Amino acid sequence: MPAGNPIRKRIVIIGGGFAGINAAMGLAKLPVDITLIDRKNHHTFQPLLYQVALAVLSPAEIAQPIRSIVRKYQNIEVLMDQAVGFDLDRRRVELETGALLEYDFLILATGSTHSYFGRDDWAKLAPGLKSIEDATEIRRRVLLAFEFAERQMQEAGTHPPLKFVIIGGGPTGVELAGAISDIARLYMASDFRHINPADAEVLILEGSPNILAAYPPDLRQKAAQQLAGLGVTIRTNAHVSDIQPGYVMIGDERIDSTVTLWAAGVQASPLGKLLGVPLDRRGCVIVDQFLNPPGHPEVYVCGDLAHVEENGIQIPGVAQPAMQMGTYAAKRISRLVARDFGSEGTGVNQPFHYFDKGDMATIGRKAAVANIKWPFHGRWSGFPAWIVWLFIHVFFLIGFRSRLAVFRQWAWTYLTFQDGARLITGSQELPGWDARYGMQDGSPIVHPAPPIEQTAGTAVTGT
Amino acid sequence: MPAGNPIRKRIVIIGGGFAGINAAMGLAKLPVDITLIDRKNHHTFQPLLYQVALAVLSPAEIAQPIRSIVRKYQNIEVLMDQAVGFDLDRRRVELETGALLEYDFLILATGSTHSYFGRDDWAKLAPGLKSIEDATEIRRRVLLAFEFAERQMQEAGTHPPLKFVIIGGGPTGVELAGAISDIARLYMASDFRHINPADAEVLILEGSPNILAAYPPDLRQKAAQQLAGLGVTIRTNAHVSDIQPGYVMIGDERIDSTVTLWAAGVQASPLGKLLGVPLDRRGCVIVDQFLNPPGHPEVYVCGDLAHVEENGIQIPGVAQPAMQMGTYAAKRISRLVARDFGSEGTGVNQPFHYFDKGDMATIGRKAAVANIKWPFHGRWSGFPAWIVWLFIHVFFLIGFRSRLAVFRQWAWTYLTFQDGARLITGSQELPGWDARYGMQDGSPIVHPAPPIEQTAGTAVTGT
Repeated sequence: MPAGNPIRKRIVIIGGGFAGINAAMGLAKLPVDITLIDRKNHHTFQPLLYQVALAVLSPAEIAQPIRSIVRKYQNIEVLMDQAVGFDLDRRRVELETGALLEYDFLILATGSTHSYFGRDDWAKLAPGLKSIEDATEIRRRVLLAFEFAERQMQEAGTHPPLKFVIIGGGPTGVELAGAISDIARLYMASDFRHINPADAEVLILEGSPNILAAYPPDLRQKAAQQLAGLGVTIRTNAHVSDIQPGYVMIGDERIDSTVTLWAAGVQASPLGKLLGVPLDRRGCVIVDQFLNPPGHPEVYVCGDLAHVEENGIQIPGVAQPAMQMGTYAAKRISRLVARDFGSEGTGVNQPFHYFDKGDMATIGRKAAVANIKWPFHGRWSGFPAWIVWLFIHVFFLIGFRSRLAVFRQWAWTYLTFQDGARLITGSQELPGWDARYGMQDGSPIVHPAPPIEQTAGTAVTGT
Repeated sequence: MPAGNPIRKRIVIIGGGFAGINAAMGLAKLPVDITLIDRKNHHTFQPLLYQVALAVLSPAEIAQPIRSIVRKYQNIEVLMDQAVGFDLDRRRVELETGALLEYDFLILATGSTHSYFGRDDWAKLAPGLKSIEDATEIRRRVLLAFEFAERQMQEAGTHPPLKFVIIGGGPTGVELAGAISDIARLYMASDFRHINPADAEVLILEGSPNILAAYPPDLRQKAAQQLAGLGVTIRTNAHVSDIQPGYVMIGDERIDSTVTLWAAGVQASPLGKLLGVPLDRRGCVIVDQFLNPPGHPEVYVCGDLAHVEENGIQIPGVAQPAMQMGTYAAKRISRLVARDFGSEGTGVNQPFHYFDKGDMATIGRKAAVANIKWPFHGRWSGFPAWIVWLFIHVFFLIGFRSRLAVFRQWAWTYLTFQDGARLITGSQELPGWDARYGMQDGSPIVHPAPPIEQTAGTAVTGT
């Protein structure tokens, strides 16, 4: 090592979500060595996951391999691995493979996961929406439900109502509900011959008195109106007591459900626990104004995993603060490193500040609610809010190609109702759906089935 | 039913591949009722599957929901179901759900599946390439192999050679080999910090004396040269006697293999057997010049499932003849129906004739071999053949959007080496790969790991 140079710092970043990627990008040009670890090989643009779940976009359009994102920075290495333990005193991360990775700075940003409130058996019956795998699983179930109903109708002449029950009325629940209503009413309208997809019911079950609890009351009400316009039913103060194949219980009341989706609760990634520092009730790591847990100025916790308060209010676990925390951690570390290299260390003591630009949620194909706080204050709803939502989301997508591809795909789907992403892959089972529904008494049903609906002018129908 | 009109015929088509879709489209404008049955909800453009397997294209770019393809024809209904039996005398198909579907004409086009020559236990160790699920599974394994090698290198300082073994040297094997070599040498070149992806070995094991046995000898030789140029090793007369996690046996010789792929044998879909008519050795239904099995002029067998001979030579099981058979069956049925409606029945006795336009296979990113028979005779190889291959394949993709999307994606990938389709989804296990390779003696490896390779001008590396 040439004399007079400070030691090159090793920075380990765990988690390739918004916080981790922004931290890595913010550190990339420093004379440091960065190891970015994620269990997956791709960064997922979570705000658009529901569009993959509802077959509007393809996985590759909203997920980017992490290696591609950081490819041009030779000092960033990407490791597809899992952390399984921390030794904060010796500054080491233990990986699943048994290896120990040393660091000078650790950035932990492993986000959050679904919380089934202790009922982990519900996970299979009501998938949530956190990963590409979750999204394609939801897509599979929703599309299969229509296929099975058509099959049943064709073979038995009748089918039980198609009912999509979404547990949780936050932004994800609202977006899923709007999107399901859209595909049922619009995109699938001419795909089936026996069922009418528009007859599908969509129900949101929300435990609290309001959907979109984080939004101002007038926007909540607008959202409820817009959802009603799409035929979505909302039940508030509805506490789900059980989930079974084919139905959901609210107390003693049974609600039939063809496909049940979970958008109700999240909890912090279990890695927070392994740090051995104080956590909040949901498992988030309580950090100070520099995003450090107590006594560990070399450890930064960012994104959904961090419990950060400003003026006594906890910063929400959404994309914006995650990006800002990642960027902040990178900036603070870069100042500390610069100080090692002889700079004055200006700004080293500047705390994290969340710059809240507002929130928005889409409601179907052409409406949204937006509570905008920057660059102006305003509450928007309906089509203008949707347009704003569209441009902001395309703008923040990582990767120029993805941005173009998503925009093109949206325009195409919007204008034509055509959709190549509507693929069912994997298993052809649906919990609670008996594949042999046509044979209650063991005797097969013999056709002729109900005749295919004819357009005017075509010839007669016979046996 | 108005008097004087003949009875409206019911046509059941089983299989939504090239033959089935072409048959349905050919019949769509007739006064008939068509039921198109497939286990999957999508038609797959099989000639491009290997590009999904090697992460160049996304599944949605080469698969189209069958409902979308036939959406505008009100007399076609699509059923996502499986046939499990036939009653040819009573003209009925039994479906998995137990229902019986009556028909006047049956078109059976369920294609072929992998044949592991009685060793079905090999299927998990060496996936073949027939479906979107197969393609994403191969993609997962190939990409994971590089990830694991990088991890191992980063943690242990060494990794066993990456070796991709492809069993079978037909067009699929050659295309897979060329594409793996490409992504290793070109597309992944700057993605990793510790391994050099270009060091990966690609090996084709072919049981017969030649790869591409169906091609003229000079083209075979050109193909072998082009593969050698890509660093692909070819072993002919190599009979695989066993496949195990991590290796393949040829007689007593053990060949290490990180990822083994199967491109060796196909057999007819098992549905052929259920017809109760004569089959050939591979399970294909032996049909006459009208594509009918003996004694059943109302049953048409098309595509890979059909054994059709012309001048004593069997027509190969590839896309072109499948499309032509589907179209032929539709045309013949339409003539029979027209005769019922009072036409003279011209052409009813015209037999099927395969119009062979030639064959082609790509070899990596810019070479191919093409044995063209129409619109001119010619044997092409190298870049010109690749350009011809490209346009023909884009042209035959079903769906205007897919054509554009694939073309754009190719152009983008070709020019930039960027690729958003390189996603690993699903399990993170690889057969034969021990996740805890770093702990042979139980003691974890402690870093510092080998330093990240530095670009010139960045600062020194320390602890």
